[in-house]
This record gives sequence, structure tokens and C-alpha cells, in this order.
Amino acid sequence: MTQYFLAVNTGSSTTKLGAFDVDGPEAQPILRARLRHGSADSEIRVWDAEGRSLPAPPPVRSGRRGDAVVDVLTWLEGKLETPARAVGHRVVHGGPHFREPVILTPEIGRALRALAPLAPLHQLPALDLAAKIGKARPNLPQALAFDTAFHHGHDPVVDRLGLPRSYEAHGLRRFGFHGLSYEYLAGRLRQLDPSVARGRVVAAHLGSGASLCALLDGRSVDTTMGATPLDGLLMATRCGSIDPGVILYLQQTLGLDGARLSDLLYEHSGLLGVSGLSGDMRVLLQSDAAPARDAVELFVFRVAREAAALAGTLGGLDGVIFTAGIGENCPEVRAAICERLAWLGVQLDSAANRRGDTQISTPGSGVAVWVLPTDEEQMIALHTRQAIALVESAGQPFAERLA
Amino acid sequence: MTQYFLAVNTGSSTTKLGAFDVDGPEAQPILRARLRHGSADSEIRVWDAEGRSLPAPPPVRSGRRGDAVVDVLTWLEGKLETPARAVGHRVVHGGPHFREPVILTPEIGRALRALAPLAPLHQLPALDLAAKIGKARPNLPQALAFDTAFHHGHDPVVDRLGLPRSYEAHGLRRFGFHGLSYEYLAGRLRQLDPSVARGRVVAAHLGSGASLCALLDGRSVDTTMGATPLDGLLMATRCGSIDPGVILYLQQTLGLDGARLSDLLYEHSGLLGVSGLSGDMRVLLQSDAAPARDAVELFVFRVAREAAALAGTLGGLDGVIFTAGIGENCPEVRAAICERLAWLGVQLDSAANRRGDTQISTPGSGVAVWVLPTDEEQMIALHTRQAIALVESAGQPFAERLA
Repeated sequence: MTQYFLAVNTGSSTTKLGAFDVDGPEAQPILRARLRHGSADSEIRVWDAEGRSLPAPPPVRSGRRGDAVVDVLTWLEGKLETPARAVGHRVVHGGPHFREPVILTPEIGRALRALAPLAPLHQLPALDLAAKIGKARPNLPQALAFDTAFHHGHDPVVDRLGLPRSYEAHGLRRFGFHGLSYEYLAGRLRQLDPSVARGRVVAAHLGSGASLCALLDGRSVDTTMGATPLDGLLMATRCGSIDPGVILYLQQTLGLDGARLSDLLYEHSGLLGVSGLSGDMRVLLQSDAAPARDAVELFVFRVAREAAALAGTLGGLDGVIFTAGIGENCPEVRAAICERLAWLGVQLDSAANRRGDTQISTPGSGVAVWVLPTDEEQMIALHTRQAIALVESAGQPFAERLA
Repeated sequence: MTQYFLAVNTGSSTTKLGAFDVDGPEAQPILRARLRHGSADSEIRVWDAEGRSLPAPPPVRSGRRGDAVVDVLTWLEGKLETPARAVGHRVVHGGPHFREPVILTPEIGRALRALAPLAPLHQLPALDLAAKIGKARPNLPQALAFDTAFHHGHDPVVDRLGLPRSYEAHGLRRFGFHGLSYEYLAGRLRQLDPSVARGRVVAAHLGSGASLCALLDGRSVDTTMGATPLDGLLMATRCGSIDPGVILYLQQTLGLDGARLSDLLYEHSGLLGVSGLSGDMRVLLQSDAAPARDAVELFVFRVAREAAALAGTLGGLDGVIFTAGIGENCPEVRAAICERLAWLGVQLDSAANRRGDTQISTPGSGVAVWVLPTDEEQMIALHTRQAIALVESAGQPFAERLA
């Protein structure tokens, strides 16, 4: 082994890790791990490159995400008998300026922290984790890969808000998220079906956060999330798009202050709010309660409605990709969405859908439909390599680390 | 003449009036008037049933809308030598309970005033005007026709917000507006092309307020405005749909309080905000300034994107109707929208579009496209008749007037 990167994908209650050999054109996984951070301890699972479970490393330090990830890194370096060449992180919001992966510096860290109000639940955990690793390993380069980066290149009309232009100076425009996932899916589809990949594709990243991306020849031309990850589809606990007049009403008539409003729209709405039961699609699908069925129906309706809107931006539809927790694991949700897209030429192969085949459309379907497990960690590793190459080509040293 | 109704359509700076003979199955116009309320005086224009300009009545009382409308009513009754049988008003928001036109009573007036926070610019002017007329003519029945009524019948999934269910008790759900206009257009299309009218039609009411309605066999099945008239398309000064996270940012990070936020989103956004020039589409179309072109482009993009979303709810598209200020009078905007809908089968007849013909699609177009001037006043008159018939059939006297 010559060199490898550790990709870190910081979620709300989990951290996904992947060690990747990046000597070749692609990033080859060496080992993957998933940490689940409870209040008292971190549960860890580890898999080899082929997805076989490995014995877990010695117990990682309990509770705090940063300590746990540093422990895994130390264990990994011992096991592979080689220090990691770099660590890469997924950062949700890159704002208007970060269009390519970068090496973390104190200045960059501060600039990205300033974007936290546009992604209050998502922006700081990865940066906090990077800071923790930086303290433990001051000489280890850390790269940042942005979920917004894949969407830069949109026609400006797609990203424009209906506000006075002066607000653009505050960074208020549509950006789009889940970009690492969409970039990976575009690449996978290019391998699987180059002809459809050159066409008009809607990719559906349906996890606890959920969005759609309109891909034209593998590039993002539109997406459902906007300036923040609160926009677009109904999500596990987020409301998605909602009449702005409703927010004014919640604030002015019902008297919700800023903190309660944020908490309501980010944490207590979506599938959880509508069902009154759970934000977990699996739980809702197993329930016979009418509000649970209503929540699932609303989720499906809004995916289909937004998919039609994105088909509008694309000028038609050649392919659909499902990915992430719900997209990969809930055939009944895929079937209900595809039924609502039948008018666009989507014909589902029900048996293939139930089996979770890679392609789930009938041979005669006007629109090819795929289920493709996403791999954000692989993209983080590739972006990390790119960030290092950019800095090395500019002759800059990795002198500065996050303080 | 046996009896006639005066239909009153209260806009932000104008009041449209129509006297209708309602003895037959339809409402036959007798006379129409438009009042433009300046700060000092009210300008008035009057037309006969065929749209020929008539000499204006003696100067109406200046400034106040209520006085001016009472003056026109008095003049009209003298001219027609018959007292009006009833006055009907367009009321923007009927909330969850008012699904049919009603005769105004003090109780109903209070219930409708309570909905003002869901339509802060639109709800009170018509009710204030009705109160003024009620004082001047305490024995004249006044009916209320609701812009939300036509949209009641939606599949519940279409009107559901992604909030906790408890907020439904506050009346927070999607409603939809411009219903009187859409009901009129559905009827007109049934006369012009019964086959298309039975199919899947998107009607575009594009005025200073703007929305789309998905019509299936003449019934509303979806629409772009939601709980309030702030949602959906980009409008003259309203932002339309916008990432809820942006509103949280405006409030919490930029420190806009409720009043400033309302003012920004209702009065200083939309075409005016994006262009920095004007909320008037005619002004923008005549401008060479890049921000003016950006605003027009965003307006067109969002109409086309939402039209595609509504085609999703409809499961396809057979017809498109343009109406209201922009829809009836801006061929370049219609052309740009239709170009973005070509993938759905829309083929525009450019010459017919420039001429403003009733049908502007080519004979071979997969989607029939129409320009149909709307007539909300006629619908107000018909709803007024319906409200009176409902009360008379129930044997209730018109005893109570708004205090």
C-alpha cells in the first residue's frame, strides 16, 4: 500500500468512515466503518472492501464523536501499518465561494462556520470534528468536500430567489445539497448505461434528508433543495417547501419565536409531524394508522410533483435513480412514486422492484429506472485527492492547520 | 329589466364593478365600471355591455373607496331606474369553512376578518367596503364569493402541509386562490372546446398576483398558491415559493422583525425586487437592463416549472389557458413559457400569439393553448344569485346586516 485517505461523512447521529486507496483513477475501498454516537458511548461496526463484517476495533472512546474518530484512525493506522495520507470531510454548505474541494486552514474554517445559519443542523458537526482531529494530528492534512459544489454550474435563473437583488450579497440564492451523492450516481450511471447517462435523469436521494437532482449529461441543472437543506421534499423531520405566508403566520399570529420556529420546521415536521408517530419511513410503512399512511402519501406525492417540475427543467425524462435509505430499501415507496410518474413513460418491473434489482424498469419502459446505492465516502476520498493535487500544483505547503 | 346585481371586485388600488342581469341561466352584463383610487380622488371609467366607453357618471366622492362605490351604485340605480337586487363581493380567503357563497351577516363578517393574517393585503379591503355599503344601504343584501371555494374538492394530499397535524386546527393547510377566475375559465373552455375541457388543463392567471390551476374535467385538482396568496409563482411584488430556511435566515441572522419580513416578501420582492426597477411586466419588457431581463426570465421559468409540476398532478397535459394582465396582454411572455413547455407537446402559432387570438396553438399541437380574458365579476354575480337562492330556499330572511 502506498497511500490511503480516510473519508469522514458526519451525519446527525452517525459517522460513516471509509479508508480508500487512491493510487489508481478510482478510489478503492480498503475498509469501512460506521459509528453510532449515543449519549454514553459510540457503537462501531467495521466492514472490509467486499462488505464483509470485520471484528470491531477495541472499544473507541465513548460518547464524543471527535475522540471516537481519532481512536478509529489510530486503530486503522496500526492495522494497515501505514499512516493515513489525509483525512477528508463532507461539508454540507460551501456557500457561493467554495466550488472545489479545499485543504482546511483556519481562515477557511472560519469562513465555513459563518455559513452555519444556512444549515444550522448540518454545518458545524463536520467542522467541529475536523478541529478535533486537527488538534490530535496537527500534521495530517484535512480536506473538505462540499455538498453544494456539484450544483454550481446551474443556469443562474435556476438559483435565483424572488427577493430584492441586494440579498444576493448576503449569500442568499439557491445552492442545492447532496452533491457528493449525485456526483457519485452520475458516474455510476455512466458505467451502467452511457446512453441514458447522457440524457435527462432525475436522481432521488431519499434518506432522512431528501432531495431530487435533475442531471443532464451527468451535470446538475436543477435540484429541490435551495439555499438551505430545509427546502424541497418532505423529509424525516423537516417540512421541505412550505408557503412563506405560513411561516409569517406561525411567527406573527401564533407567536413562535426564531428558535421555536427553527426547531419546529427542522426537527418536528416532515414525516414525523404529519404522522405524529415517527420520522422513520420503515416504521410508517408498518403502521396501519391513518396519519402514518397520510405521511407516506404526502412524501410520495411531493417526490412525484417535484420530479415532474425537474423534468420541466430538463425538457423531458430518460431515467430515474433511487438512492439512500428510503430510495434503496423501500420498494413500496419506489412503486408509488413510479406509479405517479407513469404519464412520463415510467414502467416499473414490479418483481425487479421487490427484489431491489439494479434496474427496476421494464425493458419497454420509456424511462429507465435504477436503484443505485450511493457512496459519498468514495467521493469524499476523490475530492480529497483533488484538493491535495490543487495545493501541490500551486506549490503551497500544508503549513496551516485549523487552530 | 326585472332584477340585477352589482358585482364588486376589490383590488389593491382599483375596484372593478359590473351590473349583471341574472334572470337567465347566465349573468348578462349591463354595464361595467372601473374605479382607480388615488390618494386624493377616484378616477372612474364606464363601459356598456359590448365594451363601448360610456360617459363617466358625475364625479364620485374622492379618495375613499367606500364612498365612491356607494356613489356609483346610486348613479347606476338612477340610470337603470331600478334598485339593485343585491351587491356581491369577491372575498379572497374563505378558510376551511366557507365553501359556498354566503349572504353577509355580522357573524360571518367577524369570522372572515379573523382570516386576515392569512391574506394580510387582500382580506380586509373587500370586507371594509361591504361594511361601508351596509351602512349606506342597510336593507340591500350583500353576498360574498370566495376565491378559495373553487379549490375545495382537492385530494387531501394536495392541500396537506408538512407540519405537525396540530396546526391544522389553526386552519393551516393549502387552499388556493383566484378561484372565481378559474371557475369562469373552466366554463369558457367548456363552451369553446368541450373535449379539451374534459381533459387535463393548466390555467395560468398571470396578473400582479399570479397562480396556476390544474383543471381536470373543469374541476380544480391542484394549484400553486397555498394557505396564503404569497405562495407559488413569482409575482409583481411577492416572492412566491421560497426556501423556508431563507425566511429563518432573514429573521434570525439579518434581524428582520415580523412587520419588515411581511413588507419585504409581499411588497418589495417578485418582479420588482429582482429587477430593482418595476413590478409591472410591461415596463420590464421595454427595458434593456439586465436585471429587468433576469426578472422576466425568472417569472417565465417559474411558471413553466410549476406548470410541469401541475401536469404531474394531472398525469399529463391537454390544454393551457392564459389570462389576466400578463396572460392576456404579453405575447412575448406567453411565447417564452410555451417554449419551455414544448417537451409536453405545446406548439405555439407565433402569428396567432402575436395577434392575441383566442386559440394560439398550431392545429397540430399536442396541447391546445388559449388566451381567454377572465371575468371575475360575472362569477361574483352568479355566486351572489347562488347565495340568495340558498338563503331563500332555507326560508331565512335577510334580517341581519353587517353592523
